[in-house]
Amino acid sequence: MITDRIRSFLDERRPEGPCLVVDRDVVRRNYDALHHALPDSRIFYAVKANPAPEILSLLAELGSSFDTASVAEVQMAIAAGATPDRISFGNTIKKERDIARAFELGIGLYAVDSFEEVEKVARAAPGARVFCRILTDGEGAEWPLSRKFGCEPSMAVDVLTHAHTLGLKAHGVSFHVGSQQTNPGAWDRALASAAEIFRDCAERGMTLGMVNLGGGFPTRYLKDVPAAEAYGQAIFDSLRAHFGNRIPETIIEPGRGMVGDAGVLKAEVVLVSKKSPTDEIRWVYLDVGKFGGLAETMDEAIRYPIRTERDGTETAPCVLAGPTCDSADVLYEKKPYDLPISLTIGDEVLIECTGAYTTTYASVAFNGFEPLASYVI
Amino acid sequence: MITDRIRSFLDERRPEGPCLVVDRDVVRRNYDALHHALPDSRIFYAVKANPAPEILSLLAELGSSFDTASVAEVQMAIAAGATPDRISFGNTIKKERDIARAFELGIGLYAVDSFEEVEKVARAAPGARVFCRILTDGEGAEWPLSRKFGCEPSMAVDVLTHAHTLGLKAHGVSFHVGSQQTNPGAWDRALASAAEIFRDCAERGMTLGMVNLGGGFPTRYLKDVPAAEAYGQAIFDSLRAHFGNRIPETIIEPGRGMVGDAGVLKAEVVLVSKKSPTDEIRWVYLDVGKFGGLAETMDEAIRYPIRTERDGTETAPCVLAGPTCDSADVLYEKKPYDLPISLTIGDEVLIECTGAYTTTYASVAFNGFEPLASYVI
Repeated sequence: MITDRIRSFLDERRPEGPCLVVDRDVVRRNYDALHHALPDSRIFYAVKANPAPEILSLLAELGSSFDTASVAEVQMAIAAGATPDRISFGNTIKKERDIARAFELGIGLYAVDSFEEVEKVARAAPGARVFCRILTDGEGAEWPLSRKFGCEPSMAVDVLTHAHTLGLKAHGVSFHVGSQQTNPGAWDRALASAAEIFRDCAERGMTLGMVNLGGGFPTRYLKDVPAAEAYGQAIFDSLRAHFGNRIPETIIEPGRGMVGDAGVLKAEVVLVSKKSPTDEIRWVYLDVGKFGGLAETMDEAIRYPIRTERDGTETAPCVLAGPTCDSADVLYEKKPYDLPISLTIGDEVLIECTGAYTTTYASVAFNGFEPLASYVI
Repeated sequence: MITDRIRSFLDERRPEGPCLVVDRDVVRRNYDALHHALPDSRIFYAVKANPAPEILSLLAELGSSFDTASVAEVQMAIAAGATPDRISFGNTIKKERDIARAFELGIGLYAVDSFEEVEKVARAAPGARVFCRILTDGEGAEWPLSRKFGCEPSMAVDVLTHAHTLGLKAHGVSFHVGSQQTNPGAWDRALASAAEIFRDCAERGMTLGMVNLGGGFPTRYLKDVPAAEAYGQAIFDSLRAHFGNRIPETIIEPGRGMVGDAGVLKAEVVLVSKKSPTDEIRWVYLDVGKFGGLAETMDEAIRYPIRTERDGTETAPCVLAGPTCDSADVLYEKKPYDLPISLTIGDEVLIECTGAYTTTYASVAFNGFEPLASYVI
């Protein structure tokens, strides 16, 4: 959303070139809403969504914990003020020497989804707590979820048993229902699996204590999404149904849901043209594209809201593309985007809900273009 | 290809983490082969493919010219020793202030594909030469070619006329037959269009002088590709057929064909695991993936040759994935990749033909991972 603070910043600073502006007040509001909707869950912010130091330190102050994907992210969370007990190493694919570095930094909570990873953690972080990620189908999610992370639920019991045998603390189960998950009921099936794993582990003498509900909490792009409360209620109902009165500790890992709508990407129209005089459709080229931060338009998966100074005037569909010499740098073509007919070269364009998965996705310097600049206000 | 120089460098330096190593001798050989195959064409190296300063300065010494996509690339080419008359601003999407900056730097050759872009060039680079890019269908190319660049050939005559009217020098026509173009005959249809534009312009009193044959020259990934000579011969035959004895000046813009096979990406196996005990297929996770430089595996478009220390032993198909917490970071899944069954955690993996479109595609720091390191030897 284009808050007054973001609008004022852009008007006063007039930054040259494309840039992301993130309003910390919106992040704070999102944190409060998630905390309110799931009062019994610890929040582990997914650092990868946007690791800007100002965002991390704000969340650290608010009491958030942090889900990290690499040693560098562990270090960022610590630099932002989080103590190691508030940091999990949530990547299931870790080099053994990175586990050792994280362990040295005090990290005691690790994700695994295979026997091989358990063995690395046992060697490099003896006695640490591990949770096993299980596969889910990602139905209802807008960003593709592959089978990359997680094992079959039936295997998770053996993976946790292996951890236990090697002296680790078999701590719980995690899953991810898919990013930008618009169905609050999506957690139910995974929670049923988790409860079954809890029971099977108990039969083997291991008491699991935690369910990591993952991320997936959506941000509002063009379509309305359910409010945080709806997720809180649905998840609570499922926990009740599957765990009865022995509800475990739960944690959530919001990334997009925490920062997505806090950011606005300012871009500029570089060219508006047609491929032939008889073409029905215009091509609108911006100074930012797939390689400058808008990678999530891949397969036109995420459809960002776009505001222009000419909103309210007549619109027509256009193909929207980025500025690089790469033919794959097209944002929306299969389903063209409606923009004002009067839109012209030099116009400012504001792309909303770009607070997550933009700055870090940006290429180093593809075509010589600088990576996306970012301001947290 | 893994040259002796690359192998020695890796053995002696043992760089930590994933990195690209480019052998300048291979670049030199590719330059010579292209120069020999198309002796009458000027070579404009497509800087975007790999802008490493050592590569640019080698090519500048060899006599190459440079195709650039941004002011930053113009500056890199100048820094490498190229005089401005050896540099074209080949992006059809340019901010007017960037055209002005390039013009100040002495650049006199610009790509256009629309009336609107012609007007910007006329204002910001008065009197400059322009060439108009036309659309082609990209049949036979392995990297997707969209309609992003170029206009219908019938419109190009009007675009060039507009340039002429505004005081620019209508210099020629360009096209691109698609990256990794494996059919040497692909240039024929575009050259027929170009010849027609030359005739139509001549009727309006404009003498065009140049055809920019673009890039598209392939590098050898897993399948054999025709040698440079085959392209030279096919293009020469087409020029003869369509331009008769008035063959214009031609330029080519190799990027991948110049540096692709000169680079080897060293990676490490981070994890080998299965999703369930009964799964037929292994998942092999490397420390480099789609966001660390291998973006061209998008839709599994480019299939790199991969060498391991265990080559020659029994293989089985596996899914190959990158190290980030992003489910889209999977390299080959639809068509799994055959790798040795004995491949294990910690093994070195060499990904060949990664000299082009890797270092610059790499993300700034997605998941906290450093961008791809690069060594030009």
